[in-house]
Amino acid sequence: MKRALLCLALVATALPARTPAPDVRSWRQAHERQVLDDFAKLVAMPNVATTLADVDRNAAYLSQQLESRGFTTRLLRASEDTPATVYGERSTPGAKRTVLFYAHYDGQPVGQKGWTSKPFEPVVRAGDRIVDWRSTSGPIDPDWRIYGRGTGDDKASVQAMLSALDALKARGIKPNVNIKIIWEGEEEQGSPHLAEIVRANRELLKADLLIMGDGPMHQSGKQMINFGNRGITGVRLTVYGANRPLHDGHYGSWVPSPSVMMARLLASMRDDTGQILIPGIYDDVAPASAADRDALAALPPIEDDLRRQFAIGRTLTDRLADGYLQPTLNVRAIHVGDEGPNAANAVATEASASLDIRLVPDQKPARVQEQVERFLTGLGWFVVHDTPDAATRLAHPKVIRVDWDEGSSEAIKTALDSPAGLAVAQSIGRTVGYPVLKLPISGGSSGIADVVNALQVPMVGVSIANFDDNQHAQNENLRIGNLWDGIEVYAGLLADMSW
Amino acid sequence: MKRALLCLALVATALPARTPAPDVRSWRQAHERQVLDDFAKLVAMPNVATTLADVDRNAAYLSQQLESRGFTTRLLRASEDTPATVYGERSTPGAKRTVLFYAHYDGQPVGQKGWTSKPFEPVVRAGDRIVDWRSTSGPIDPDWRIYGRGTGDDKASVQAMLSALDALKARGIKPNVNIKIIWEGEEEQGSPHLAEIVRANRELLKADLLIMGDGPMHQSGKQMINFGNRGITGVRLTVYGANRPLHDGHYGSWVPSPSVMMARLLASMRDDTGQILIPGIYDDVAPASAADRDALAALPPIEDDLRRQFAIGRTLTDRLADGYLQPTLNVRAIHVGDEGPNAANAVATEASASLDIRLVPDQKPARVQEQVERFLTGLGWFVVHDTPDAATRLAHPKVIRVDWDEGSSEAIKTALDSPAGLAVAQSIGRTVGYPVLKLPISGGSSGIADVVNALQVPMVGVSIANFDDNQHAQNENLRIGNLWDGIEVYAGLLADMSW
Repeated sequence: MKRALLCLALVATALPARTPAPDVRSWRQAHERQVLDDFAKLVAMPNVATTLADVDRNAAYLSQQLESRGFTTRLLRASEDTPATVYGERSTPGAKRTVLFYAHYDGQPVGQKGWTSKPFEPVVRAGDRIVDWRSTSGPIDPDWRIYGRGTGDDKASVQAMLSALDALKARGIKPNVNIKIIWEGEEEQGSPHLAEIVRANRELLKADLLIMGDGPMHQSGKQMINFGNRGITGVRLTVYGANRPLHDGHYGSWVPSPSVMMARLLASMRDDTGQILIPGIYDDVAPASAADRDALAALPPIEDDLRRQFAIGRTLTDRLADGYLQPTLNVRAIHVGDEGPNAANAVATEASASLDIRLVPDQKPARVQEQVERFLTGLGWFVVHDTPDAATRLAHPKVIRVDWDEGSSEAIKTALDSPAGLAVAQSIGRTVGYPVLKLPISGGSSGIADVVNALQVPMVGVSIANFDDNQHAQNENLRIGNLWDGIEVYAGLLADMSW
Repeated sequence: MKRALLCLALVATALPARTPAPDVRSWRQAHERQVLDDFAKLVAMPNVATTLADVDRNAAYLSQQLESRGFTTRLLRASEDTPATVYGERSTPGAKRTVLFYAHYDGQPVGQKGWTSKPFEPVVRAGDRIVDWRSTSGPIDPDWRIYGRGTGDDKASVQAMLSALDALKARGIKPNVNIKIIWEGEEEQGSPHLAEIVRANRELLKADLLIMGDGPMHQSGKQMINFGNRGITGVRLTVYGANRPLHDGHYGSWVPSPSVMMARLLASMRDDTGQILIPGIYDDVAPASAADRDALAALPPIEDDLRRQFAIGRTLTDRLADGYLQPTLNVRAIHVGDEGPNAANAVATEASASLDIRLVPDQKPARVQEQVERFLTGLGWFVVHDTPDAATRLAHPKVIRVDWDEGSSEAIKTALDSPAGLAVAQSIGRTVGYPVLKLPISGGSSGIADVVNALQVPMVGVSIANFDDNQHAQNENLRIGNLWDGIEVYAGLLADMSW
């Protein structure tokens, strides 16, 4: 064991270890306002992919940004009425390896309540106070945050790449890999066309390594890389009572209650500790390997801090990532009846719930969907996939409409000790000056699974956004210091990585 | 047994049996458009009691309507900023009995989705087709319906009284009772001040019988009277997860899920058959008497029709009213997270549910509330009655906020064979030409309980609205024939009732 460690140490020493970080940092320090201004401009472009014109404007802008940095670009689309994936490539003479960088420029919907500034009018805040940063002088405080949809998820990765290219050029440092970029425009819609686009462009996208630039960093603030993503399949369930709202005094003891039926159904799907109660759902789950367990154990403990920050009196598992190598069933939303000023003493006509199940490697979405539907049938539910007509509702004691979300994805996972993975870890380690944390699999999901499967390429996820970036929610933000660090990390991945 | 039946028949025959119904009908037939126009004018007055100016306009209008019919009126209020109960009285020289008529002129909130015409712009429809009834000639089809908030619940009773007074006057028929009227303005808010108003005006409101004019008729279309109402206590429950929305991939296996907690809590409160699972809740429930059971059994079976109309494949009890003499727990609403275009793969910060429990005689709201809170505590919930602070949320694994609704009410019940009750039954029987149905207790609730308790008066509920009037929901309506019949019923109660 000692010999093995020594060998690894020798290999690491033998690799070129010249990080561009100091040069990149001095460039960034001289251009902070310019970089932040570029980023604010990017965030100000609405990017919810349900509005095609919005994401198209982002795509055109980003293509132009890449071209101005010497890239050849193309917009890859499944069809004319779907968002574009921005593709760019730039060769490096003499480079041995080609690295494909993925990020996405679209963002989650913005209709959540509680945005304290408009999602597409980015502002910088020091705590709660808005900072007129353009008028200030001196260095920008790295703990200031910029707010807006897409700041953390995932335009930070896009900006880090653009600014890293600028920094390297300005300091005369050449990349040592051929660069390919795909920036997706509908990741937050479940990447419905990414697989098709990648399959149609296998040769174009061929690479030795895929860097997946998405997701938040470790909560400790340390750089972390991940070796995969969980998959996901989502579903909307609707259960039915009477076909009109009924006075709950006169009918409540006789007519089935959609709210109670839904509550009882959901309670039968997941217990109080987070275990999923759907038979068979753990059948395809592989036990965690020793390497996975070791990597998980090496993550700095942040749970007590998180508990305090989130004001929660208990957690479902001890360590945050304990559950990542298991599927998780999340009940995203439940809606029945009206509350507040519109509340009525009525039995509602239907109840709906929105769920997702995060999947681990070897779980196939189709099989999980079958398991869920078999479970429902076993509980006496008559399963339909469209609005049930009156005859159907009359004929069955319990009718449930099951609408599977578009865009299920499988989990992917790269071996922790693959050569490309080690190269990424070492480059980032040199950039930041400490051993990068390794997450065997990310808790979240990504359409990147389709890319990995189509290209048969090792993948390492590199995150730069702060963990508390409110991604997917109101007041999404990026800690500005994370962007600064991200630029150095990306510069290292371009100019200081070899295997 | 035969002898008893015979005696009853003799008594019935011995009472004055001169119903004004034929005279009232001929008057109504000659004045249909006038009556309907009056009614439409009344319905067009917004009457949601959360807007005081709206209900005040109704109250002023109704006072004027009563004064124009020879009544002395007063507006009874708990305070200046609360809705008025319209009081009116008119003596009948030589009358032996005084009858107090109750109805309410306020309506449920109107924010429900799916109103096909505006709630305060009444329209008449033949099926789905809007009828320009003012321009038509010939009799108005009694199966046409007038749509608008308050049509069925409960302005129909108000209009029936006003038109009955007009009809009797026009035909020269004198009432044979002293008439007192209270029309409440905040019944749909839970009658928060009715008790106070009645207690402050006991002498003014003294009567030998209270006619409670609210609620829907029997589903068979037959006239039905009831001898009480269930009570109600309502509550809003809120449970908490993290204090900010969290990505459900990264946090869903670790952070408690408010949606799952709420689902599991609600599932533990009521089973699939409607039984309440809160310990002690049935302790104060008296068994149904033989008379109650007989009256229930005599109700025409309408359940198969209802099942088909409502398109439900099962029911919780065999007969609709089987559960009325038991408490019922209704989950009116559940809300967690966003659905549809704003849906996010996030763990929500909190989940809320709105419940009510319908109470039967001898159940005290305060005791039921205690039982519910003890049940919650027993399940490990830390119960608070205001927004919990971070320290509270951090200190307890499960925190629940419990907000009891204003305006709980107790159940009331009058004996089926009380003299006043028999007088009502006989009067209506003569009006309609068949034995009126008797419901031992109504499934719904009413602030009338406070009136009955304060005045110590027998109460009989007289309903005229069609059962499918969508009360408490969108597209509330009144079948016009029910208004015509209601006018005759009220005329009978004024001029053909003695005991």
